[in-house]
Amino acid sequence: MLKRRFIFHMPLDPGCLLERDAERSADRLGCAAVDFPVAVVLPAGGSGERMGLATPKQFCTILNRPLISFTIQAFERLSWIGTVVVVVAKENHDLMLNIVQKCNHTKAKVVHGGTSRHRSIFSGLQAFSSTTDSLTPKPKVVIIHDAVRPFVEEDLLLKITLAAKEQGASGAIRPLVSTVIATTSEGYLDHSLERAKYRASEMPQGFLYDIIFQAYQRCSEFDFEFGTECLHLALQYCGTNAKLIEGPPTLWKVTYKRDLAAAEAIIKETLSMSACIIAGAEAEAVELAKALQKNLNMMETDVIQCAKESNTEYLSKTRNFIHISTTASNFLGTLDMAKRFEDTDHARLYPVVVVWVQLNMTKQSVDSQKTDELTAFRSLASEVIQGNVLLYGIQIDHTKVPEQWERSVERLTQITVALIRDRNAALTGQLLHA
Amino acid sequence: MLKRRFIFHMPLDPGCLLERDAERSADRLGCAAVDFPVAVVLPAGGSGERMGLATPKQFCTILNRPLISFTIQAFERLSWIGTVVVVVAKENHDLMLNIVQKCNHTKAKVVHGGTSRHRSIFSGLQAFSSTTDSLTPKPKVVIIHDAVRPFVEEDLLLKITLAAKEQGASGAIRPLVSTVIATTSEGYLDHSLERAKYRASEMPQGFLYDIIFQAYQRCSEFDFEFGTECLHLALQYCGTNAKLIEGPPTLWKVTYKRDLAAAEAIIKETLSMSACIIAGAEAEAVELAKALQKNLNMMETDVIQCAKESNTEYLSKTRNFIHISTTASNFLGTLDMAKRFEDTDHARLYPVVVVWVQLNMTKQSVDSQKTDELTAFRSLASEVIQGNVLLYGIQIDHTKVPEQWERSVERLTQITVALIRDRNAALTGQLLHA
Repeated sequence: MLKRRFIFHMPLDPGCLLERDAERSADRLGCAAVDFPVAVVLPAGGSGERMGLATPKQFCTILNRPLISFTIQAFERLSWIGTVVVVVAKENHDLMLNIVQKCNHTKAKVVHGGTSRHRSIFSGLQAFSSTTDSLTPKPKVVIIHDAVRPFVEEDLLLKITLAAKEQGASGAIRPLVSTVIATTSEGYLDHSLERAKYRASEMPQGFLYDIIFQAYQRCSEFDFEFGTECLHLALQYCGTNAKLIEGPPTLWKVTYKRDLAAAEAIIKETLSMSACIIAGAEAEAVELAKALQKNLNMMETDVIQCAKESNTEYLSKTRNFIHISTTASNFLGTLDMAKRFEDTDHARLYPVVVVWVQLNMTKQSVDSQKTDELTAFRSLASEVIQGNVLLYGIQIDHTKVPEQWERSVERLTQITVALIRDRNAALTGQLLHA
Repeated sequence: MLKRRFIFHMPLDPGCLLERDAERSADRLGCAAVDFPVAVVLPAGGSGERMGLATPKQFCTILNRPLISFTIQAFERLSWIGTVVVVVAKENHDLMLNIVQKCNHTKAKVVHGGTSRHRSIFSGLQAFSSTTDSLTPKPKVVIIHDAVRPFVEEDLLLKITLAAKEQGASGAIRPLVSTVIATTSEGYLDHSLERAKYRASEMPQGFLYDIIFQAYQRCSEFDFEFGTECLHLALQYCGTNAKLIEGPPTLWKVTYKRDLAAAEAIIKETLSMSACIIAGAEAEAVELAKALQKNLNMMETDVIQCAKESNTEYLSKTRNFIHISTTASNFLGTLDMAKRFEDTDHARLYPVVVVWVQLNMTKQSVDSQKTDELTAFRSLASEVIQGNVLLYGIQIDHTKVPEQWERSVERLTQITVALIRDRNAALTGQLLHA
């Protein structure tokens, strides 16, 4: 019955959404190739005016977690990366400390920024320069990144780091999306640039710590105020021509409100790539589990018998659980599972979805929903949501009429997929009908 | 009881999402200022490789409608714009004709494109050059746009059109998002451009028809094959320096899969800005309607008594309806409404949401859901979804305990908002519980 498919190779962190194979090989290479200290500076002092939102974009939440936490996590998960220095405006210091604590970002260190992007980066670099602070030893290579580019992959970080070590500086680039044109002072077209010769300069960028620190020590007030490009400073003040490395499209910067929706879609899609179906031992439940698994062909699914200790491995590999039971009161097994998620911290960073499928074997399907039971289910749902577990119920009536059964299983599939993809907190505790 | 708020000023088309006031004044200006024929060419021959999808991006659907239909609609809704020539690859000709018919795009004319973007645009322009075809008279000004930029606003189109009439050519620009750098042939940084002097060239662009047609007649095979910029051709072959006009961020081009998610979010948000609450005459229902209206303060809502003929005006101004009734069988009124939407074509372009709120006055709330009733509701939902009407049900138990009642109304609000915002087809026909 244990039909293992791909579940053990599933990436659960959106940072590894793309290039899975590349990620895995990078993982091995990363630990072997980076035998020197690497740290990160994450300037996050921006006010997000462009976004049209009251909250600076790095603090806007996706699935109840601030965007910047996803970015920190993208670095923190890599064993070869040390401290992540997060530079925030003074007024956001407490907020940021709160995020670090709530999301358990053990590698993060929060410092105050300056009044411009370059001043903030310099503040971040200065956090390392005091040799007496053993918590933040001076790194060999420092990676500078944007707080609002959450999907940076290990593969690229490794390339950036190694190129920085070798060349002194390195930076991610992307092809230009639009033609770049020069304008006259009256607002007319002067000429257009030949697209092939130019690139958009993106983040992350990597530097030998000594080079970028020196560049900032030497640069002018004008640079601090109006400059935007760290690579330019390294070139101008240290004569270092950065090595340029083509990055993937997922590097894009969350700039507008619509970008938040796009980031949310990427994260939700990643979280919806796998599920674990818990079916117990009853023949009808197992049959339904298999039919559901066949229908859920867009997801990588596994069917297991129960959610006991021995299956902890399964339970830690996905954040979606479909619990099939034939007796109405059986959702208490769900309670155990939800408690376990809390204990193991499995729902800290991403909400876990539990869909309780109640397979009705009698004909009195709807009338059998006793008010008390429903109330108990709803109160359980409102309890576990505190621990970031989203609990939904779906009833399905058993029938021996093949056509009718197929239609019901198809509806069950659609509803299950909708609940898992949307992860909508407002619909928890509902008992739907397939 | 008829509390009118902003419902009559609501924009329903995502094209007018932003700059509502500007839109309205442009609307007036548009008809007055444009006293010459204007047409549009929409090259849509792309294969969407960058998107990582099998379907070319212009044919990817949002709420069951292809992206290109939103773009066509953005032009079609303007009275001063005539024919919209859509240029597609030969293999997509039937697909495109199908879309035009299904979405009732009366101004669209479909023609075959060439093997490059410039060849496709030229094909589009040639559709006008035959003077014998009275369906597509030669325009004074032609607007060239991308099929995958659906949110173009009238305000900008008007500026582009008038500048093209006056200067011969005009184009939308945006500030550069990233620093543009020149690279050496070995992949190192050569220098970075001074951001303030350059702009990204976007769409739409406008031209005197005779100028752009002549430019294409004169340009080289190399231009046809590798050129990307119409403004450049007008400059090089006709000596016309285009007037550049700054456009809003919503102009962005749907390029990657994540952009589709962003576009969907914009459309769904726009559709969720207003709702009409139909409450009947019973005191409890009216009371609930008012409480709900107060809670739905993010939306512009209206409470009306019934959905009869005389209220057609209300019914045509929003695509979200909340139907409150105190008797269980009352969802039949919903059926009437759904049929009316079909008759008036109100759900052709955007799905209409109908939330049927069943206010239980008795204590036996859940047991009162008779299986037959539920089955009837579900089959009604699966019927009206064929006409693009999404029907959901929510039960709420009446109580005189203020705290309990407030909590229930709060839950009702959250569920209603979730259903309206998500517009999830898989959840129609469900009877939820507040």
